[in-house]
Amino acid sequence: MAQKDKKDRLKARKPRGLVDRTADDIASVGQMLDAIRRVYELYGFDAVETPLIEYTDCLGKFLPDQDRPNAGVFSFQDDDEQWLSLRYDLTAPLARYVAEHFDQSPKPYRSYRVGYVFRNEKPGPGRYRQFMQFDADSVGAPSVSADAEMCMMAADCLEALGVKRGDYLVRVNNRKVLDGIMDRIGLGDASAADTRLTVLRAIDKLDRLGTTGVEALLGTGRMDESGDYTKGAGLDPQAIDIVLGFVTAGGKNAAETTANLERLVGSSETGLAGVSELAAMATLFDAAGYDATRILIDPSIVRGLEYYTGPVYEAELTFQVNNEDGEPVRFGSVGGGGRYDGLVGRFRAEDVPATGFSIGVSRLASALEALGRLASEPVAGPVVVLVMDRDEIGSYQKMVTDLRQAGIRAELYHGGSGMKAQMKYADRRHAPCVVIQGSNEREEGVVQIKDLNEGKRLASEIDDNAAWREARPAQVTVAEADLVSTVTEILARQDDAPIRNAG
Amino acid sequence: MAQKDKKDRLKARKPRGLVDRTADDIASVGQMLDAIRRVYELYGFDAVETPLIEYTDCLGKFLPDQDRPNAGVFSFQDDDEQWLSLRYDLTAPLARYVAEHFDQSPKPYRSYRVGYVFRNEKPGPGRYRQFMQFDADSVGAPSVSADAEMCMMAADCLEALGVKRGDYLVRVNNRKVLDGIMDRIGLGDASAADTRLTVLRAIDKLDRLGTTGVEALLGTGRMDESGDYTKGAGLDPQAIDIVLGFVTAGGKNAAETTANLERLVGSSETGLAGVSELAAMATLFDAAGYDATRILIDPSIVRGLEYYTGPVYEAELTFQVNNEDGEPVRFGSVGGGGRYDGLVGRFRAEDVPATGFSIGVSRLASALEALGRLASEPVAGPVVVLVMDRDEIGSYQKMVTDLRQAGIRAELYHGGSGMKAQMKYADRRHAPCVVIQGSNEREEGVVQIKDLNEGKRLASEIDDNAAWREARPAQVTVAEADLVSTVTEILARQDDAPIRNAG
Repeated sequence: MAQKDKKDRLKARKPRGLVDRTADDIASVGQMLDAIRRVYELYGFDAVETPLIEYTDCLGKFLPDQDRPNAGVFSFQDDDEQWLSLRYDLTAPLARYVAEHFDQSPKPYRSYRVGYVFRNEKPGPGRYRQFMQFDADSVGAPSVSADAEMCMMAADCLEALGVKRGDYLVRVNNRKVLDGIMDRIGLGDASAADTRLTVLRAIDKLDRLGTTGVEALLGTGRMDESGDYTKGAGLDPQAIDIVLGFVTAGGKNAAETTANLERLVGSSETGLAGVSELAAMATLFDAAGYDATRILIDPSIVRGLEYYTGPVYEAELTFQVNNEDGEPVRFGSVGGGGRYDGLVGRFRAEDVPATGFSIGVSRLASALEALGRLASEPVAGPVVVLVMDRDEIGSYQKMVTDLRQAGIRAELYHGGSGMKAQMKYADRRHAPCVVIQGSNEREEGVVQIKDLNEGKRLASEIDDNAAWREARPAQVTVAEADLVSTVTEILARQDDAPIRNAG
Repeated sequence: MAQKDKKDRLKARKPRGLVDRTADDIASVGQMLDAIRRVYELYGFDAVETPLIEYTDCLGKFLPDQDRPNAGVFSFQDDDEQWLSLRYDLTAPLARYVAEHFDQSPKPYRSYRVGYVFRNEKPGPGRYRQFMQFDADSVGAPSVSADAEMCMMAADCLEALGVKRGDYLVRVNNRKVLDGIMDRIGLGDASAADTRLTVLRAIDKLDRLGTTGVEALLGTGRMDESGDYTKGAGLDPQAIDIVLGFVTAGGKNAAETTANLERLVGSSETGLAGVSELAAMATLFDAAGYDATRILIDPSIVRGLEYYTGPVYEAELTFQVNNEDGEPVRFGSVGGGGRYDGLVGRFRAEDVPATGFSIGVSRLASALEALGRLASEPVAGPVVVLVMDRDEIGSYQKMVTDLRQAGIRAELYHGGSGMKAQMKYADRRHAPCVVIQGSNEREEGVVQIKDLNEGKRLASEIDDNAAWREARPAQVTVAEADLVSTVTEILARQDDAPIRNAG
């Protein structure tokens, strides 16, 4: 093909908020997923997987970001004009799945799922439009023992991933308590649903905006640094005080916190039910030996999703790391969940009690990397057989095949360049050694094998070029028949050497 | 919530051509993916992953199904009005990736990728709108040694997955030979591009329609059983003869086949180049010990994708199985690929030679299942601790936690039902045993453990109810402190037993 005109050329580019992943990232996140899977399975959950595309109406619209036209979801129409969407979480598709297979499933139905979800949102640092979640859910489980278990499992997962006790905290609250507060400030009716949601999302921003920010959002509204104005819930000062009292009701132990909450909800039945659920969960944490340094009843946690109906929980990393500007930051939430008794019920005559926990895999991976806890043993490079003479490519191919049949990662050089470029290629691939056979070697029935790692080490010791050529270190010439055994020896020697063939 | 009106209820349903996957399927396909990964890595390929969404123009339109409005792709517009699509294969996104990272990559750049791809096509038996592919590609590799390697790797993968020699065949052809044939019948010019594509797709249907069907599609056209009419390429009888001669040019060995092809392409330079590439590949297969029962030069293989420019190859399972109607059928293609020298070049000043191989994971999994080669050891069920007395749930939780801390898969019953339903639940979960503590046992500081597998075995031997109650077989009462050690013993005994706890 002729040289192309630059203006006809397509620009290779990726849409915003999407990432390409490298071999090291894939390997280390893979090990992380295996560790989470082992904990979820230990807890009795079984794997299930749903497709990435669902009917839009089956997913429902429960995302916090409602300011944008399609409410944070990627949607498109099918041939029969029905709307389809990419799943935005792993809970809504599970609700569809369980409702569809309800009669054949054991109840409770306990499953875990891992996979990508999509948000059609404005991307930002650490905020992607495609990211991975790892969820576990108990559907048909009315007892808060199912919720308590999720919190313990969150703690166990983080410890299995190498996060030390004291470096994480699982915070627990209950939406029914919040509903009790809403009752008290006159927002209990169906007609106040929108205002309730605004209050919920205001509280959910406590971590980011602090009490003053939340106070503004509960009142008339708030202008952020960029000048964007968010309309507030319009509560009167007394109601704001009650809500802020709820948010800051955490005491020094579960008994004190639940006592505070009991006072705040007054006579609201829903509120009192929520308080008693929190107390029941505290008993279970206590019985299983998860103290308040690991799982804490904390009224400031509400979660942004609309569909929660009871206990909500959030797993947070509490240690500090320095960001790119050298400022200390906390990682914050790496997972969370809660009870969603109405979500499966949308499809059925009866409500179906359910609770679930979700780990934000990509976010947690970044955190573990900062902790130095993300396994990152690089995949060892392949042995490269150089192509010195194109007419003899069959014999080079045979060497590669012999190495592979002995279980040795190996490849033929498939490029079109000469010896120097081939050596450079082997180096970039982190090849442990290269195999060379020129015409002289072929006549003698031998091959040269260069140990690239040993070569690098010696190169740092010998600085006289003449001496180097004389010694020809890290290079052996062996009979063709001894190729596999010699390479095997070199690889074994490198495995024992202190300097690894790092990627 | 009150009983809901049926007509207000959402119907839980899945869009056509998408599947939910069970725990057994996920586990066995996972093992299959691991086996493929080991072969790809042995061959020197490194993992990389691209997002599921790309700019539509970066993917290009290379799918065979062009009769539908969006050419087989799911597409939607971004906020800035640019068109996005779900990837329809793993090759087009790789081309985008390599073009974007060209200068920093080793050349050849050798990678593997596994993941879901999407086709907005009419679903059918074994034909899904979301399915998994597992690809390997060498980009920047002009030598056909890179193509030959793909064919050998395809053979090695199938053997690693338990497909016996003789039960598969990798067929190889070359698009340049076909281009030579096009030259000969006067379709070599740019203006004949559409007709060339029609000819290509007619040949690609040989497997399904036989020579007569292809002949019709090369001529005026063909009506299928459903009455749908496909317009033909409109070739004259002489041209049709030449094309059919090409398709049936396979001889009894590579030398005979390439000699036949050489005659057919006449003086076409492109055609002769293709024949010589096939001969070079045959030499490599021979040198590496892959004979014609494993890899065969076969002119009837052309592949449906438009972007191939040189060698094309297809891995086929050749054994027969019976379909649901008891009729013997061949599985056919489970993977394939070819050389696509222009695909990366769309983004760059120069063409970039590349070749790749793709396994259709879901299709291959069905085939392996039919062969009985798909690993399907079910995940063992959890030990279930029953809840006999809700007020004592803390002590049941402690038992579960103790079992888990000993590495035993265990769970608390989170449902709201009584003893009988709990036993039924344990049974449906394939629990190896259940742990029971009523008020009597609690007072005595003991627990009952029922071995459900042993219980089932004995139930088939003892048919007298009274004798059963007397003997209380498969049930032990032990001190609370001995719970973990007793369960450990029961699990070890079950592992040794001939009857497994099958799922």
